[in-house]
Amino acid sequence: MPYRETEKMRQRKAKARQRIIDCTYACVAEGGFRSARITRIAALSEVATGTIYRHFESREDLFAEVFRRATQREVDKVAEALATEGDATVRLEHALRQFAERAIRGPVMAWSLIAEPVDPKVEEERLTYRKAYANLFESAIREGIRDDCIPDQDASQSSTCLVGAIAESLVGPLSPAQADGNVRITPEDKNALVDSIIRFCMQGLTGTRK
Amino acid sequence: MPYRETEKMRQRKAKARQRIIDCTYACVAEGGFRSARITRIAALSEVATGTIYRHFESREDLFAEVFRRATQREVDKVAEALATEGDATVRLEHALRQFAERAIRGPVMAWSLIAEPVDPKVEEERLTYRKAYANLFESAIREGIRDDCIPDQDASQSSTCLVGAIAESLVGPLSPAQADGNVRITPEDKNALVDSIIRFCMQGLTGTRK
Repeated sequence: MPYRETEKMRQRKAKARQRIIDCTYACVAEGGFRSARITRIAALSEVATGTIYRHFESREDLFAEVFRRATQREVDKVAEALATEGDATVRLEHALRQFAERAIRGPVMAWSLIAEPVDPKVEEERLTYRKAYANLFESAIREGIRDDCIPDQDASQSSTCLVGAIAESLVGPLSPAQADGNVRITPEDKNALVDSIIRFCMQGLTGTRK
Repeated sequence: MPYRETEKMRQRKAKARQRIIDCTYACVAEGGFRSARITRIAALSEVATGTIYRHFESREDLFAEVFRRATQREVDKVAEALATEGDATVRLEHALRQFAERAIRGPVMAWSLIAEPVDPKVEEERLTYRKAYANLFESAIREGIRDDCIPDQDASQSSTCLVGAIAESLVGPLSPAQADGNVRITPEDKNALVDSIIRFCMQGLTGTRK
């Protein structure tokens, strides 16, 4: 029964591929892309290093895949937050706050996704995903303009300002995480940090003092 | 006279190095880092490709050097703009506007400096220089807070919001430049684009509708 044999093999391959991705993800969450060496991933995944290259053309392709999966998760969270109740300003603030808080809770992964120098393939993905965040914000800004809770403006431009402001302002606070796996700030500092980012973003959008 | 011989050689080497940098700069300004192939740079600089590797360990090191020089020029322009007359809000607006307008006037180079996926060495430089911009903005924001023209806030955080907002909001408008060497927007659109970025940034800082 050659067909069933092939199906079995396909499933086993898919499982191995998933395990490689999961183990790489765990490495990145712990020590960034730089810590995710192929020998380490192979050991964690319990496969030979050669097996990794049967599933991914290169380390860079594996990283790009892990980047996409991890970032898509964050994009989905932003989409969820923007789909809740309330007017557009409330939902945008909620989404931005959640993004920042999630980043601070998982600082090593967040820093790796936002700012770690990796390689051009991951950089290409960064550009794509920043556009995905911006598109979500843009729709919410348009709704806010339509419903008169956000002043008329170029929603597309403002959405990229939001993406840039929130990402860049997290780089510094998250980057020490690379050194020791912990953000060296107190819970109060974290709240103040998130508040100050959100204030800038919402003031930028609405022109109203928060 | 071995000393004078050595001095002459040193000068000739320095000149060749400078020519390699200048030619790489010209390539990047015309078609981004991706167009700056070593064979092309060698031909333009009128040196053998091997000579390039006597001056720079790798293509990446050469790129990092060109990135530093080009970006330092922009950082200096921002510093100059922030050192002019007027209160901090006026100077910050002036600096942001000038940054955006210079980027739009040299869109290929600007896109390469801000967003082109290059390699980790250039990415490391990007992080460093973004901090340099932020430090300049931070000082101006502090002056504004001290002089009561900017509301009290975390100047360090807000400075990174400014850097992120202006850089990210230029990525989209500049990126088509990679394709054909021109930003496909009219002069009116350019003004509207710059105005909308500046509005977001200044509102973010001041909480006052512009």
